[in-house]
Amino acid sequence: MAKESEIISNIRRKTRAVDDLIVGIGDDAAVIEHRGTTDLIACCDVSVEGVHFQRDWTSATLIGRKALAVTLSDVAAMGGEPRFAMVSLALPHTSQETLADEVMQGIFEIAEASDVAIIGGDTSSSRDSLFIDTSVIGECRKGQAITRGAARAGDLIFVTGSLGASALGLLLLEQGYRLNDRADENSSSPGVEDAAKDVWNPMRQQALKKHLMPEPRLSFGKVMGELGLATAMIDISDGLSTDLSHILEESNCGATIRAELMPVADCVRKLARVMPEINLLNLVLHSGEEYELLFTAPGDNQRAIMEVAATLNLPVIVIGRITRGRESHLERGGKVELLLPSGYEHKI
Amino acid sequence: MAKESEIISNIRRKTRAVDDLIVGIGDDAAVIEHRGTTDLIACCDVSVEGVHFQRDWTSATLIGRKALAVTLSDVAAMGGEPRFAMVSLALPHTSQETLADEVMQGIFEIAEASDVAIIGGDTSSSRDSLFIDTSVIGECRKGQAITRGAARAGDLIFVTGSLGASALGLLLLEQGYRLNDRADENSSSPGVEDAAKDVWNPMRQQALKKHLMPEPRLSFGKVMGELGLATAMIDISDGLSTDLSHILEESNCGATIRAELMPVADCVRKLARVMPEINLLNLVLHSGEEYELLFTAPGDNQRAIMEVAATLNLPVIVIGRITRGRESHLERGGKVELLLPSGYEHKI
Repeated sequence: MAKESEIISNIRRKTRAVDDLIVGIGDDAAVIEHRGTTDLIACCDVSVEGVHFQRDWTSATLIGRKALAVTLSDVAAMGGEPRFAMVSLALPHTSQETLADEVMQGIFEIAEASDVAIIGGDTSSSRDSLFIDTSVIGECRKGQAITRGAARAGDLIFVTGSLGASALGLLLLEQGYRLNDRADENSSSPGVEDAAKDVWNPMRQQALKKHLMPEPRLSFGKVMGELGLATAMIDISDGLSTDLSHILEESNCGATIRAELMPVADCVRKLARVMPEINLLNLVLHSGEEYELLFTAPGDNQRAIMEVAATLNLPVIVIGRITRGRESHLERGGKVELLLPSGYEHKI
Repeated sequence: MAKESEIISNIRRKTRAVDDLIVGIGDDAAVIEHRGTTDLIACCDVSVEGVHFQRDWTSATLIGRKALAVTLSDVAAMGGEPRFAMVSLALPHTSQETLADEVMQGIFEIAEASDVAIIGGDTSSSRDSLFIDTSVIGECRKGQAITRGAARAGDLIFVTGSLGASALGLLLLEQGYRLNDRADENSSSPGVEDAAKDVWNPMRQQALKKHLMPEPRLSFGKVMGELGLATAMIDISDGLSTDLSHILEESNCGATIRAELMPVADCVRKLARVMPEINLLNLVLHSGEEYELLFTAPGDNQRAIMEVAATLNLPVIVIGRITRGRESHLERGGKVELLLPSGYEHKI
């Protein structure tokens, strides 16, 4: 029942300094001094049935794919390049013999697409839940890992891609919508007899895809590390408001972001018209599991950053600025209000 | 329901070669080329409630301690030195707030004693079971990692410590015996009114301790790697018969071991007198979770190996010899029989 943040801060207090450990617990990943021109990056993420995913919401292959994707994203958020991964599985003893193969298929798919080698792992049975832990080892240029702790007052705040679709995808899953495996079809809407007539379904599929098949920003993160363009970086796993607060806490500064600059995902903007339960701004500010990169950089670097973004064909925009205080503010229609971290935190 | 070995061989088939990956899936740990004079070693192990441990059999602290101990042991089995560890926890949502702290206390205890830094991890809730996944990164001298695959006909087969106590400890746990936290007491035998009169209890405590508080052979493993004394090495996690078969399979050779040379743990030999359910030889041949090192080396190295063992005050003995065939044989009272791997394999 303790909060994850309390557990982590307890653990952090107990860790001790080691000569070749550059970044320890509390960032997206640890950084270890490597000989030569690179440092090593290491991180792990656990995915648990009933907490991170439901098996009847999607295929085991996509569950496996996402389990590794989120850990690769942590390496990207350090400005590094993932190289090696290990996978531990605990499979319900009642499950089909094919479950491990299906989970591993998704893991291999994203590993290959990301040029990451699966180098080890462990398997076990479990009483009732599927449990996947993925560990990733990556590299970054020596001394160039981008932590959460070096944002400075005056820096601009950037975000990649667009936001809101992952939380919307989760809501749609809860409502019974499913991702259609075949990209050329538009079916799978419950209660809609003739799926082809459901003009909203392509939007729903976009939201479901963002939630179930996140694309970690590996190329962008790596280049940001190589070029040393960002002062602080994190991936949006708990929601922008919460992940921004992590940067502010570690960097000992504040921020002001502008509501009208927030990059709302196209499917979110469109579906908001027919889903009164959606609060557009809340979704964008607090949607977790987006796996976009949130980072800070001095204004002088903006042009170079936008060139990288254009080269990689990835939308990147400025949403605000780092300030001297310790608070987060949201500017909205000329008014300024306090922005509290309201993203997801796993209670444990 | 697939066997762990099938899952691993499926995964192994799908992995591809990477330039700086020296040893991939299928050994105790992966080995990655490191710049300078060392290679990196990486491995992980998952511990699942109801499969690897029962929470009412021991403290959460000892469960955490063992979860990391078994992964450290894998690094020792490669002839390396563990340096860094990451821990992923999934904690039952109904559990006490202190559970994470207790598990981590055991992890920190063995990490500190082993000079290993905890550098990261992840926490989550789970529906009903405690899951612990530990990943360890270690080092070994460049090109000196000791795999399972280089035993040669004529090599002697060695084992550290003594065997049988871990399986006996598990049997005692199932019978209701518990490890006494205070080392100076001899209580905790069910049905024995006056514990002090139970002369067998110290033996039971030894067996329980071996099962619940395994001591990975870190110093010995590391020195074997540094000095390049062993041709193949593995830690005994699934039982000597099974772990020996892994060496034989990877090294493409056979073995003959002699029953009368097997190092029977003192507590096992003594308790066998009053526990008719124990088959002494079976226990020693097949007892898993011993975390002793099983290794092969040419006879020329025997003297140097015994000097290392004496220096570290660790019993090491020769139990047999590697042969040309592909089978394992057991010599027993002048007769030779086939030795089949009969240790534990997690069905999943």
